[in-house]
Amino acid sequence: QTRIDEVVESVDLGGYDHYMLKEIYEQPRALAATFSAGAGLLSDDACFGDNAADIFDRVRNVQIVACGTSYHAGMVGRYWLEELAGIPCEVEVASEFRYRKRVQHEGTLLLTISQSGETADTLAALRNAAPGEFVGSMVIANVDNSSLVRESDLVFLTRAGAEIGVASTKAFTTQLVALLMLTIALGRRGGMEPETQRELVNALQRLPDYVQETLELDTNIEALSEAFIPKHHALFLGRGIQYPIAMEGALKLKEISYIHAEAYPAGELKHGPLALVDDDMPVIAVAPGDELLEKLKSNLEEVRSRGGELFVFADRAAGFESEPRVRVLNMPHCPEAMKPVIYTVALQLLSYHVAVQKGTDVDKPRNLAKSVTVE
Amino acid sequence: QTRIDEVVESVDLGGYDHYMLKEIYEQPRALAATFSAGAGLLSDDACFGDNAADIFDRVRNVQIVACGTSYHAGMVGRYWLEELAGIPCEVEVASEFRYRKRVQHEGTLLLTISQSGETADTLAALRNAAPGEFVGSMVIANVDNSSLVRESDLVFLTRAGAEIGVASTKAFTTQLVALLMLTIALGRRGGMEPETQRELVNALQRLPDYVQETLELDTNIEALSEAFIPKHHALFLGRGIQYPIAMEGALKLKEISYIHAEAYPAGELKHGPLALVDDDMPVIAVAPGDELLEKLKSNLEEVRSRGGELFVFADRAAGFESEPRVRVLNMPHCPEAMKPVIYTVALQLLSYHVAVQKGTDVDKPRNLAKSVTVE
Repeated sequence: QTRIDEVVESVDLGGYDHYMLKEIYEQPRALAATFSAGAGLLSDDACFGDNAADIFDRVRNVQIVACGTSYHAGMVGRYWLEELAGIPCEVEVASEFRYRKRVQHEGTLLLTISQSGETADTLAALRNAAPGEFVGSMVIANVDNSSLVRESDLVFLTRAGAEIGVASTKAFTTQLVALLMLTIALGRRGGMEPETQRELVNALQRLPDYVQETLELDTNIEALSEAFIPKHHALFLGRGIQYPIAMEGALKLKEISYIHAEAYPAGELKHGPLALVDDDMPVIAVAPGDELLEKLKSNLEEVRSRGGELFVFADRAAGFESEPRVRVLNMPHCPEAMKPVIYTVALQLLSYHVAVQKGTDVDKPRNLAKSVTVE
Repeated sequence: QTRIDEVVESVDLGGYDHYMLKEIYEQPRALAATFSAGAGLLSDDACFGDNAADIFDRVRNVQIVACGTSYHAGMVGRYWLEELAGIPCEVEVASEFRYRKRVQHEGTLLLTISQSGETADTLAALRNAAPGEFVGSMVIANVDNSSLVRESDLVFLTRAGAEIGVASTKAFTTQLVALLMLTIALGRRGGMEPETQRELVNALQRLPDYVQETLELDTNIEALSEAFIPKHHALFLGRGIQYPIAMEGALKLKEISYIHAEAYPAGELKHGPLALVDDDMPVIAVAPGDELLEKLKSNLEEVRSRGGELFVFADRAAGFESEPRVRVLNMPHCPEAMKPVIYTVALQLLSYHVAVQKGTDVDKPRNLAKSVTVE
């Protein structure tokens, strides 16, 4: 497939009502293509660019810099790098990182993430790096020949294809695939068990199937979305690696449905936001475990009199059932590392259906540009 | 003054309508007392506890762990530690930190922050630290004999006096004083210039005056607060060290006025939240510089047709003037390092007046407890 073919294909709505929906449904293919592009991770240089192996050998820390949705991908990447590869990782919003007097640890890789490869603040962060501040730079981008791709030492190109909807969907999930592949490549050097490597690779191979299963919940999610149409607020809660997914879910709802959705790490609920919860502010819990769900229920017990309602997206194997004021969406069972991807897909569908029913301009939300090339 | 005197005095409203307002006005005294408690920073051990000098000599990194308002104090501390002391610092919400498989750099000090010294998740984070994971532990707390105080190697007791209002005010600003004193103590070891040390100490000594000047803006802030009464949303923007202050301002408004206020680093506005801005969502910019203010104005230009309004809290020396849809509050001019404190005080007064005019229970907001001793 040539670049021209790809553009022609991407402009065709192919029977979908909006580019966003089309792009949500393209994810199984985009994820598979992105994983294949890594050539089975057999060679670091083939996967991440010339000298990748040399640079990776010297990496002791990773500093991720990005904006918006890509920043959320970076936050997921941080959990993987620290938990699976044992590599300390920090993530910072580009517009903050670039203006701050910072202190880097030795052996730090500067990793930027940007769908367009042209995000102004992210590019400025790369360009402002002091000589010798990093052992190397790497970008995860979706557009070849973009500024970040040209100016970084290493490149991982996601194969999402052209993304037209302003609210990023397939670009985000393919960034997650790239980040997990980087985690494996760096983890090998830090003694990641071959068994763990195999499991992760297997999980990535099966990811398109898990996403397909999630897409099949579309009708259930659409039914759930009706509850959000009259709302002006929403609170998304996640813990650990699901916290950035809660942030991404909230951002999508903000961007296209204009509902003021905010994400919190679940444990912070009692430190402030609980005061806000009432019948205009549903609470969405992303992939809570047993224990967390019980805590959430008891936190929300206090607000039931004011109509607080809880929506739970949880692994079907957990066996949660809907009850008064608690609505459960049973998600496909999949390996732990794939959960951030499939819960994202479910939340993408949720915001899409809310926006469509509210009648907003789904593909071109007010005031937002596809690539933020100004500061 | 004995502990009993202090309790008796704190329970007396002393002519104020609410404890929160009383505690806001007690800040000049509380900040002075907290600084004095450091005994002029002449001896680390006198200021931070036995063995402070020994432990500080081995500190190469700081890991701050806290919840809610104390977490925001930690975020301010991170900027100071990195920019002024050159020490890498990370800050994490306690409920996230404790459950995560993490990787620590060598020579890391575990610094917890908690007004009550009993915050459940923060205490659990300290107790779960692995043997040898940290070179030592330190707590910044306001209550002597609390669990965190008893179980930490080093202690800095803030002298805020008993805080009764659920929304923390003087506890937060005194935590900032403690953090800046720690920054000086650690910075000395990393080659902080004597001139810089003197400037910071002078600034801390004069801080009560700057806060007093800010309190004198009360009537102006009350006048500004009227615009927020009919609103259900607010967006707080800050950059750099003012971003956590924007977060703290948003949290106060959430907690006591039940307005859904959310903070963003200013540069992220165009990456999503701008879609939300309309006449129901005022934007508050905290201490923006010239350049940032121009960018904000141009970002908001697009939403003027929908009634987007900007409130600017800025140094009076910057010479910003109100214009249609941009209302400026001129703040006292003070040294850079004191700005986080005085802007916090102004935002405390803002939420206080909004809450009073909305008729909420200012001192005991719904669903929130003063110390979160459950998980």
